[in-house]
Amino acid sequence: MPMPRRHLTSVAVRTGGVVYLFDCGEGTQVPYKAKHVGQRALRVVAITHLHADHCLGLPGMMMLRAQMDDPAPLVLVGPPGLGRFVGHVRGDLAIYINYPIEIHEWSPSAGERAYEDDLVRLSWRPVEHSVLCLGYRLEERERPGKFDADAADRLGVPWGPLRGELQGGRDVTLPGGRVVRAEEVVGRPRRGRRIAFVTDTAVTPAIEQLARDVDLAFIEGMFLPEHADEARDKKHLTAQQAAAAAQRAGAARLVLVHVSPRYERGDLEQMAEVAAAVHPAAEVGREGQVITLALPD
Amino acid sequence: MPMPRRHLTSVAVRTGGVVYLFDCGEGTQVPYKAKHVGQRALRVVAITHLHADHCLGLPGMMMLRAQMDDPAPLVLVGPPGLGRFVGHVRGDLAIYINYPIEIHEWSPSAGERAYEDDLVRLSWRPVEHSVLCLGYRLEERERPGKFDADAADRLGVPWGPLRGELQGGRDVTLPGGRVVRAEEVVGRPRRGRRIAFVTDTAVTPAIEQLARDVDLAFIEGMFLPEHADEARDKKHLTAQQAAAAAQRAGAARLVLVHVSPRYERGDLEQMAEVAAAVHPAAEVGREGQVITLALPD
Repeated sequence: MPMPRRHLTSVAVRTGGVVYLFDCGEGTQVPYKAKHVGQRALRVVAITHLHADHCLGLPGMMMLRAQMDDPAPLVLVGPPGLGRFVGHVRGDLAIYINYPIEIHEWSPSAGERAYEDDLVRLSWRPVEHSVLCLGYRLEERERPGKFDADAADRLGVPWGPLRGELQGGRDVTLPGGRVVRAEEVVGRPRRGRRIAFVTDTAVTPAIEQLARDVDLAFIEGMFLPEHADEARDKKHLTAQQAAAAAQRAGAARLVLVHVSPRYERGDLEQMAEVAAAVHPAAEVGREGQVITLALPD
Repeated sequence: MPMPRRHLTSVAVRTGGVVYLFDCGEGTQVPYKAKHVGQRALRVVAITHLHADHCLGLPGMMMLRAQMDDPAPLVLVGPPGLGRFVGHVRGDLAIYINYPIEIHEWSPSAGERAYEDDLVRLSWRPVEHSVLCLGYRLEERERPGKFDADAADRLGVPWGPLRGELQGGRDVTLPGGRVVRAEEVVGRPRRGRRIAFVTDTAVTPAIEQLARDVDLAFIEGMFLPEHADEARDKKHLTAQQAAAAAQRAGAARLVLVHVSPRYERGDLEQMAEVAAAVHPAAEVGREGQVITLALPD
């Protein structure tokens, strides 16, 4: 639940000037504004499950976005029932929305792809909770490979538009008639960054599948290991379990989220230690934390 | 809308260990917890109208209250459609509630009485907004009059239980056979405290009716007078209009609430001056402000 000085878990991923938001509990619009994430940039909100602490801030976020002139369409991704919830609130509270809303609900036949656009691919997968809950994996699209200027020089490609064509992946014919193929001067496409967002789940192989080789995994660390029984009964993870899953998945970095409000500052330090003992790059997420991920080579 | 360091307007009135809450927008549970108002004490939530900034925090407040063992029933008071909204959210988000919820919706035939219990009477009255919006008036029940010990001495009433009977309003027979009537030793009943909560309305006589002779009126002061045209178009009040209504109503004190988030600190000072020029005991409500009202003589 939202607490004084501790908002509910939500992660905003920004790439190419576009924002993809994961979960939106009551009050998420407040830190969203405070951190200047940008209403206009918000393109997709992915909801893990229909518990209030994960989606009750959605109407407010939708209204915030309606204060702009001419906002772009908004895509909502989530479990079955998301559209009904949004439709009910819109109708019951006469919410003003001045842009199209597209809703993608998971279904058993939905496949892994939740959403894609020119920048990213978003996939989903049910995890193991008391209600249907989805974990997410966001991958940036590949970038073109590096341009090898030395190779271009050797092949006699002149400076100018022909190099641009080659960098764009298109073969060119030089003024002397020689054909240069793009792959002769451009390296392999470089992968985009990958993140996973997984919360409200018991231990399940889906966590590792979602977090496989990601640059950054956000995984719930709701409980300290001393509350492992409670975690199991409520279908949540301990920090240790989250770290173990991230480690098995080969996630380069782990940020624990959705930490129980019962824990005070000292407990959070203990939680960070517990996780770091299992995954060397584990930490407990902080209110308002901003993480910049380097582009992979 | 909720802003960093500026929550949506909500007023909690506490008397006799019981809390009556007026409006509950997104995030109201956070300052409610921060100020330790008390979940167990919450008995009634009165909603002015079904716009999100006045009621979207209700599900969270209901859930907060469900974290106690054996909470008392909760009464929700508001416009038609309140029950539908609450029912939809409860169903769509599978909200856990472990206490009965009683819902009183206003209707044209509802009369002035919204709710009453052993401590207070709550009345309602439609004001003038873009949707049906209710203003509220809360009155504590009368307290017994003052006991006149000198009069009791003169009449020969002995110390002890007979005086208690008289104070409770019951006539007694003294040991010598003389009858003493309660009114001979107990003054007139003393009125309880009165407050009004009126927001989201254009100028209308209902404001004065609700705030008639109250000890404290909470009235929206959404706009500075320079934005009077906008106030009129959106069916809101300027600070000046609010102060004038409170003054005509004979409200002893005025606190302006629901101030537009566009205004910065300097604007709020100007707003306080504008209001105080019309009503001598007017001020702009502050985040987390606590006001103690003396019992009337």
